[in-house]
Amino acid sequence: MTATTAKWDVFELRLSGPTGGNPFLDVDLEAVFIFRSRAVRVPGFYDGEGSYRIRFMPDAEGAWSFVTRSNAPGLDGRTGSFDCGPALANSHGPVRVRDRFHFAYADGTPYFPFGTTCYAWTHQPLDMQRQTIATLGRTRFNKIRMGVFPKSYPYNENEPLQDIYQRKDDGTLDFDRPNPAAFRHFETQIGTLRDMGIEADVIIFHPYDRWNYSGMTREQDFRYLAYLAARLSAYRNVWWSLANEYDFMLDTKPMEQWDRYFQIIEENDPVGHLKSIHNGDPRMNYDHRKAWVSHVCIQNWDVKRTVEWREAYHKPIVNDEPEYEGNILPAWGNLNAQELVHRFWLTVMRGGYAGHGETYSHPEDLIWWAKGGALCGEAWRRIGYLRDLLESDVQGGLEPLGVSTAWPWTRVSGAADPVGGVRFIYFGEHQPIEWTTGLPVDNDNYDVDIIDTWRMTTEVAKKIPPRIPSRTRHGSVVQGGKADAAFGVALPGRPYLALRIRKRT
Amino acid sequence: MTATTAKWDVFELRLSGPTGGNPFLDVDLEAVFIFRSRAVRVPGFYDGEGSYRIRFMPDAEGAWSFVTRSNAPGLDGRTGSFDCGPALANSHGPVRVRDRFHFAYADGTPYFPFGTTCYAWTHQPLDMQRQTIATLGRTRFNKIRMGVFPKSYPYNENEPLQDIYQRKDDGTLDFDRPNPAAFRHFETQIGTLRDMGIEADVIIFHPYDRWNYSGMTREQDFRYLAYLAARLSAYRNVWWSLANEYDFMLDTKPMEQWDRYFQIIEENDPVGHLKSIHNGDPRMNYDHRKAWVSHVCIQNWDVKRTVEWREAYHKPIVNDEPEYEGNILPAWGNLNAQELVHRFWLTVMRGGYAGHGETYSHPEDLIWWAKGGALCGEAWRRIGYLRDLLESDVQGGLEPLGVSTAWPWTRVSGAADPVGGVRFIYFGEHQPIEWTTGLPVDNDNYDVDIIDTWRMTTEVAKKIPPRIPSRTRHGSVVQGGKADAAFGVALPGRPYLALRIRKRT
Repeated sequence: MTATTAKWDVFELRLSGPTGGNPFLDVDLEAVFIFRSRAVRVPGFYDGEGSYRIRFMPDAEGAWSFVTRSNAPGLDGRTGSFDCGPALANSHGPVRVRDRFHFAYADGTPYFPFGTTCYAWTHQPLDMQRQTIATLGRTRFNKIRMGVFPKSYPYNENEPLQDIYQRKDDGTLDFDRPNPAAFRHFETQIGTLRDMGIEADVIIFHPYDRWNYSGMTREQDFRYLAYLAARLSAYRNVWWSLANEYDFMLDTKPMEQWDRYFQIIEENDPVGHLKSIHNGDPRMNYDHRKAWVSHVCIQNWDVKRTVEWREAYHKPIVNDEPEYEGNILPAWGNLNAQELVHRFWLTVMRGGYAGHGETYSHPEDLIWWAKGGALCGEAWRRIGYLRDLLESDVQGGLEPLGVSTAWPWTRVSGAADPVGGVRFIYFGEHQPIEWTTGLPVDNDNYDVDIIDTWRMTTEVAKKIPPRIPSRTRHGSVVQGGKADAAFGVALPGRPYLALRIRKRT
Repeated sequence: MTATTAKWDVFELRLSGPTGGNPFLDVDLEAVFIFRSRAVRVPGFYDGEGSYRIRFMPDAEGAWSFVTRSNAPGLDGRTGSFDCGPALANSHGPVRVRDRFHFAYADGTPYFPFGTTCYAWTHQPLDMQRQTIATLGRTRFNKIRMGVFPKSYPYNENEPLQDIYQRKDDGTLDFDRPNPAAFRHFETQIGTLRDMGIEADVIIFHPYDRWNYSGMTREQDFRYLAYLAARLSAYRNVWWSLANEYDFMLDTKPMEQWDRYFQIIEENDPVGHLKSIHNGDPRMNYDHRKAWVSHVCIQNWDVKRTVEWREAYHKPIVNDEPEYEGNILPAWGNLNAQELVHRFWLTVMRGGYAGHGETYSHPEDLIWWAKGGALCGEAWRRIGYLRDLLESDVQGGLEPLGVSTAWPWTRVSGAADPVGGVRFIYFGEHQPIEWTTGLPVDNDNYDVDIIDTWRMTTEVAKKIPPRIPSRTRHGSVVQGGKADAAFGVALPGRPYLALRIRKRT
């Protein structure tokens, strides 16, 4: 048995095995993949109809071998090997945390998350799923939040394409028997996203449920997590989002259970994908300092506090839900487009990352945030423009100018890339006609552009002599008397502008 | 000696006394004003050139008598009486705290502060002061923040009209000898404001100084406070603002000294005017729970946190400086007009009050925030419109719908008047096309209007059947399944709108 698999692609071993009893419960299967002296334990899974699979994502080029272990004799001690070839074009490997607050692919390419949200898109009719994919292809989103389970919620009344667990004879769901067809479909779509360069932020639990998926027992939850990790870990674009709004389930799934969920993922994910968990109530952030959390997921509209969250958790900040662009009744879903673009800029210019969602009322409740389909708003293009700006010039990540309390960076926003050297200042609701603070102090050998964040234009800024503020006493301290930059720039005095400062080469 | 003084107006006793030595230091003077069994101690002050004055604001109609006390024999034991007549038209007495978070005049008329800021307007040329008064007369501002001392700061380079203290022979200021002419001018302008129905929020100390007023000794500060209280307390429209940005002077005036300042005001202000103190750094709010603080003054741009401050201090919130409309370089002074109007609405709809300032660049640095003169911005009219809305319908004060963390009132804003019954919902950056939350649950016998906060228009809202959200599980709790109001309203789906809900009579 020999095969060739590209680095960071999926090597899949298919085996036939027992069908009696409940193979999901009864059969243990794993393999150890060996590369030189290195051994990687990889869990297998039952895929129904006597089919067992082990999926593995090799991360080193060369010859790999493997041996299986199972309590089923026919599945135990199976061996084989394969060659891992170079990564495919446009494959950069899984995303990792880099430089504490940022991300990069395994090959070192920077990854700046600009995600969107379609919670239940894989549960919609297939035509609509195709439409979602086509729409994503026209955007610059490179991450999508999507649930394993279907969603029952206002504007989410339709039945899902498939059950996630098999039905018993009495018609109820059997939470001891996953439905492999449903998982295969989910994986197909994760693979589609992967090939488009889009990370799948897989939401494992959520409270919005009329099928009782959220009411499984603790042991069923644990098995579900292990099964999911066995099936999905070999997809390089998977992120684990333990929950959407875990805090709305704390009465049935207490905090220590959430901690254990993280551990079970770690025990069954040999790739070590990114892991986090998303709160509902803004007071109820999970303690993202815990070791098993790779990055901070929150929902919070007060995005100028991004620097506070960096200081609290010392991990990358992904604000998945700084409210959604739209016009539906719930207040989380009727934000003006310009305000959402503003919140993206505020977040990124304070060293974090934000997530998009769109919730425009639709006569048939076909709303992007839940079902995918078409985008009809105005923010998504501007968010793509922001991504383009970052990818053009940022090599490491944008670090905020000033800490959470430093003047003037509580009011306006600014960030610089310690690696690439580019610096941005975002004025947002502020509209100065001249500016110096945060501009270079060494000399004027810089190119400065004015960015209109809404119109998506840049123009060369006019440099002017820096304003020299008069001397000002603060108690016994005298300030002012000298300019705070080597030059100033003239600005047109309207809101939602930014500056980009690049050293001339 | 008999006279007639209107209730809440100034009764002034003028006496001649010693001129030798330093009467400011050497002569103690006070009077006890007696009404039936009540005795009120009122400090007097030296007004220069052998003239001594005692000012008193009677608050009860009828016959008052008085007797003076002094260490100067000619000033001691002087007696007299006067009749206190009815209050003048448009005189409602001093403003007091009412219902914990709100204000009312002494006669019970509600007072909703809508203030502006002209820190050094009384130090500008007299023509410009006349212009400031004329401009104020065209606005709806009913409070102004103004400093006793002149200001030295960027955009504030000109010399003041008058020194606040007398000069010594060597040309330096003698902080043991106030300049009565400067105080008389200041009082004249306070009287002008009083007659216009505008409260004078008198800023006693500030750090922005090139004359060393902020460098007086502790004892000189104490005497200055007592002198100011003796001169100004009889003006019913005085509020005491201990400082603008006291925290920038903590190295020279430590916290216990600020506490003592408050006490000295209390010891010398028989009227008991409102007292507060204004921070600079948003982390450095004074502890407004202290007993001598009547209301909370802060500067903070993050105005959705108004309910948090109410909960922290349990006193009225006046956010003097949620940033200023303008376009100058400093980030506190270049806010877009629409955003400032938005912050006023957010603050008021969360149970607080906000302050205005305007900082548009001017070739001669004639900027309203510092010098008064003309207004050239767009926010002031909309702020006046908001005041008009409140005065039309609010009888007590607006209490926020929901506490600081309650859904959906962290995202949108709403408030109701427990006395008058009017209710407002402010959507701000949110733009739903329908709404129910916070609307009446009892029946639809209400008039509902849509307010465009920027265009300053109202139109009758179209009522629609309330949306019944589908049932949604939160852990073990099932929500939804019933409407949250007796009716809904259709909205045009654009930002910066509000609803006004009034019971039909």
